Amino acid sequence: MSVVLNRIDSPADLKKLSLKELNQLASEIRELIIDVTSRKGGHLAPSLGVVEMTIALHYVFNAPFDKILWDVGHQCYAHKILTGRRENFKQIRDYKGLSGFPKREESLYDVFGVGHSSTSLSAALGIAQGRDLRKENFYVVDVIGDGALTGGIALEALNYAGEIKTDLLVILNDNEMSIGHNIGGLPSYLAKLRTDPTYYRLKEDLEYVLERIPAIGKTMLRSAERIKDSLKYLLVSGMLFEELGFTYLGPVDGHSIPKLVALFREVKSVRGPVLLHVVTKKGKGYPPAEKKPCTFHGVGPFDKKTGEPLSGSKDRPTYSGVFGSALEEYAEEDPSIVAITAAMAVGTGLENFARRWPERFFDVGIAEQHAVTMAAGLAVEGFKPVAAIYSTFLQRAYDQLLHDVCLQKLPVVFAVDRAGLVGEDGETHNGLYDLAYLRNLPNLTLMAPADGRELKAMLKMALEMKCPAAIRYPRGPADRFLTEETSKLKPGKAQLLTKGRDLLILAVGSMVVPALKAHEILLKMKIESSVINPRFVQPLDKEMICCWAEKCGRVITVEEHILGGGFGSAILEMLADEGIQGVHLKRLGFISPYTGQGKRDFLLERHGLSAEKIADEAYRFCQVQEKVY
Amino acid sequence: MSVVLNRIDSPADLKKLSLKELNQLASEIRELIIDVTSRKGGHLAPSLGVVEMTIALHYVFNAPFDKILWDVGHQCYAHKILTGRRENFKQIRDYKGLSGFPKREESLYDVFGVGHSSTSLSAALGIAQGRDLRKENFYVVDVIGDGALTGGIALEALNYAGEIKTDLLVILNDNEMSIGHNIGGLPSYLAKLRTDPTYYRLKEDLEYVLERIPAIGKTMLRSAERIKDSLKYLLVSGMLFEELGFTYLGPVDGHSIPKLVALFREVKSVRGPVLLHVVTKKGKGYPPAEKKPCTFHGVGPFDKKTGEPLSGSKDRPTYSGVFGSALEEYAEEDPSIVAITAAMAVGTGLENFARRWPERFFDVGIAEQHAVTMAAGLAVEGFKPVAAIYSTFLQRAYDQLLHDVCLQKLPVVFAVDRAGLVGEDGETHNGLYDLAYLRNLPNLTLMAPADGRELKAMLKMALEMKCPAAIRYPRGPADRFLTEETSKLKPGKAQLLTKGRDLLILAVGSMVVPALKAHEILLKMKIESSVINPRFVQPLDKEMICCWAEKCGRVITVEEHILGGGFGSAILEMLADEGIQGVHLKRLGFISPYTGQGKRDFLLERHGLSAEKIADEAYRFCQVQEKVY
Repeated sequence: MSVVLNRIDSPADLKKLSLKELNQLASEIRELIIDVTSRKGGHLAPSLGVVEMTIALHYVFNAPFDKILWDVGHQCYAHKILTGRRENFKQIRDYKGLSGFPKREESLYDVFGVGHSSTSLSAALGIAQGRDLRKENFYVVDVIGDGALTGGIALEALNYAGEIKTDLLVILNDNEMSIGHNIGGLPSYLAKLRTDPTYYRLKEDLEYVLERIPAIGKTMLRSAERIKDSLKYLLVSGMLFEELGFTYLGPVDGHSIPKLVALFREVKSVRGPVLLHVVTKKGKGYPPAEKKPCTFHGVGPFDKKTGEPLSGSKDRPTYSGVFGSALEEYAEEDPSIVAITAAMAVGTGLENFARRWPERFFDVGIAEQHAVTMAAGLAVEGFKPVAAIYSTFLQRAYDQLLHDVCLQKLPVVFAVDRAGLVGEDGETHNGLYDLAYLRNLPNLTLMAPADGRELKAMLKMALEMKCPAAIRYPRGPADRFLTEETSKLKPGKAQLLTKGRDLLILAVGSMVVPALKAHEILLKMKIESSVINPRFVQPLDKEMICCWAEKCGRVITVEEHILGGGFGSAILEMLADEGIQGVHLKRLGFISPYTGQGKRDFLLERHGLSAEKIADEAYRFCQVQEKVY
Repeated sequence: MSVVLNRIDSPADLKKLSLKELNQLASEIRELIIDVTSRKGGHLAPSLGVVEMTIALHYVFNAPFDKILWDVGHQCYAHKILTGRRENFKQIRDYKGLSGFPKREESLYDVFGVGHSSTSLSAALGIAQGRDLRKENFYVVDVIGDGALTGGIALEALNYAGEIKTDLLVILNDNEMSIGHNIGGLPSYLAKLRTDPTYYRLKEDLEYVLERIPAIGKTMLRSAERIKDSLKYLLVSGMLFEELGFTYLGPVDGHSIPKLVALFREVKSVRGPVLLHVVTKKGKGYPPAEKKPCTFHGVGPFDKKTGEPLSGSKDRPTYSGVFGSALEEYAEEDPSIVAITAAMAVGTGLENFARRWPERFFDVGIAEQHAVTMAAGLAVEGFKPVAAIYSTFLQRAYDQLLHDVCLQKLPVVFAVDRAGLVGEDGETHNGLYDLAYLRNLPNLTLMAPADGRELKAMLKMALEMKCPAAIRYPRGPADRFLTEETSKLKPGKAQLLTKGRDLLILAVGSMVVPALKAHEILLKMKIESSVINPRFVQPLDKEMICCWAEKCGRVITVEEHILGGGFGSAILEMLADEGIQGVHLKRLGFISPYTGQGKRDFLLERHGLSAEKIADEAYRFCQVQEKVY
């Protein structure tokens, strides 16, 4: 029964409530979030952790005049519910429904679009400095998690904030984890802060004593400023942030609305950058999520009562799972294999590896740049590092890929997971650019498996090479096998799956199986197509592809990727370089990254990447009169 | 007279020297560095700053068994001179000469290739962890500047190092500047450390007193661990690093060989990550460089006596200069224009802008990711941010370009300087990837001017657009004007420069002028070519380019860029999408990023991108029999 929540159509309505009603509101929001995510999945645990904080923020601050930014954005559910999107919340993550992340075009309350971690502090600083230039006077509030704070861009921004001294409230949402557990000196430091509120007491004692003892006083008065500084250190809490130029406040209980409201009000009068340390519990208020915050970070549909996942899809092997098992198998034989992840041990299938060989497993936290260059360092020492990173997050390490790994020809293996559409997480998380940003890197062998078996074989090959290699594979089940037994993988060699003279279908990775089905459909329409699984995007199998392109005269390329600079583009380059003329080529893939969100298969179909749609396009393509000049 | 230096063929020779000889060696190395760079230019000031440190390192540590890493690498001259490359040093930065940066294939002593800033700590951590896994026992030493430390990847690594506790010596080479002055809370903090060695004294006083006063003692004994921590803070120095898990030592005078030797020896016995704070002077020992460390960071040839630049090339307007002046002109009219740089105010031509409008100028330090997302924040607030970043460094912010700026269609203007070959700095600094990584980003207008006038017009257009825009332009003089007066710039419209039916030359940006000259050469060979300056790489002028491609039947694309995914690739895509058949296309550009180093014009010629070479290729291309199937 959402008796309070139903009255809240905007933050203005919130401000009329009593404290008791605010607490009631928190319960109702929590219930709504649990109810909706239990049916459709979503980022449950992060959103449950900040319900009280969100209420208190909208109670004290005046959005959208004041700007509230959410880092990563996976914790924004309560924010969306309170800012005029209560009803639409039921369609969150659906096709054409609310985004699971703040999105500028969705609402004036969503100040800055997010999805990737650690960006909000930079954005907030831009907004705050813009405000200062215009001599406006709104508040800028940035909510950032302790996990996100270890990302390079956030640390760059933290350093910068200390210099410019603009008014800015950074709320450090400390839930002691990112998606997995946190990594690094900073998290350890935060842990110390959390557990030691009594430092304040100590400081008072010392100050009292120091004031009263002439001997010390005398020594110290020689340098008054230094004494002040020294005493500041006795506060202990937050000195790291203080040293960087922030006023540090906290830690405070993030589930007490009265405390948060009081602090937010107080903070309004503090000038310069303030870091308010708020301690929250991921999954707060839903026992299964409190118990397993990692599992409930982002979930599929589950039984609200037990917290158990609803669908049986868990039983189907995923690409991530195949990758993880294969790597274990190879790592048993070869002690020089080490694995690296950036806060995605579970997502990338490395959980077991981490358990079996903790000393050969490196989780660097949300720090993709560091992950890649550290892998290069391990390769220098003769190891075979496998860096498993989602396609969309590997974008963060583009320069490191080029400058540190590929230019130096260091044998690092990149397991590029979630390449292609990710589904409900939507456009910020799609991995639609990796073929383009990887295929022109020097010395890099770039592969894409058509099924799980091929992924396993490619990983083996990648580990045996003496140069950098990347394998891109999609989200989802890996058991849609090619109809025939996969032929042996050979370096740089493609696989001819069917022979036909009307058309060549060149489908890469996840598109091979749909292309084979399209071939079947086309047969019924009397079109005989050749289907080639290129396997290698770099280097391409020139011989086979050119031969069949010439034989057929018509080529369709199919990729779960953006068209600009992608696989089809590489084929065009090759045909031109080989001087092959008169071949018609049509590229299927994504014209833009605005794919929408929703079920992956549904979106693929909508964008013409289902077997039927590929067959349709192929059929039309075969009917077109050739233009030759 | 290099009487000592001439005896040093490897670090082993160094270890035999007396302290007096070591000091003499420092003078001789300094003399050699000044002499060579005065004749050929180079990174003078950074290398002069670490002469003593380099000697002390090779005196105490045992390279290449021990691994010494140099961040950025522009300070490696003494290291190269001492590690068997004394004679070759005279050809540093020449074509086929020594690289100006550490390079793995050049020497066993160059542990990790560099050029871009802030990578070494990650690499060192990889190497150190590899060592630990193999149970080997060499030392890993990383020399990193205070400027480089503000880069995101270095901060990620700093955080990570605190967690893993591996043995590692990080030498913070604190010269109070990166390339310009430093930005952020961290540098301010370092400044405080530098100036306050007396903190130690204070600490001793306090400890003494506290021990002797029962009242405090009693209060404090309740939490012994906390007291220890609190006292630790009274050390003040380096607590930020201590909090992150490092043992902090310093600051120490970086120009005293005895002190450095003593400290390095001492540090060998300290376990875990150690941060040794060494204070050096950029340009040390060469008065003009000490006075103007920014000017002498990287210099062209200069008069050794006066420090004055030798060549008169300063008088020719550069692209950076044209950009800077144009931006000033527009900024006078439009107060919403703001400028952003990542530690490259001088290099990008923004010096005057910074002086005239300090409040509208944002130098974020070496922090490209933060620069780009902060620009997005400023755009949210209605400003017109212009982010001027070298092509090679913009690679660092690829994800931010896509995720924060382009996906959100925020009107940030990117001035992509040094696009193409950079010359003597070589492969790590070339900007050969930007067309590929920019052209498929959503909503981004991508332009390339053929001369300075066009750059100015493009900047104006970019500032007037309501969407993201990037302008890529090369290093060097901007006064090689097109022969005819530039026609008015229109959105998405190319410029037809010559009309001919034998061949279409599509040359982008810096290649337009050479292409026009090639056209003249071809005329003498009775080949009439059309030359089109596309101006826009995204969106392409379909109408004009397709029309002339069809008319000519033969197209040559010319780009100062890698071929994979570049401009020619975009033309191939367009022709295929438009269903245009029978057009032969040849792409000229770089096949790989291994361009070598040396004079830019020389390298361009060697890689077939001079007017003559373009004409040769075009001539041959016109003779080839067409293959049509």
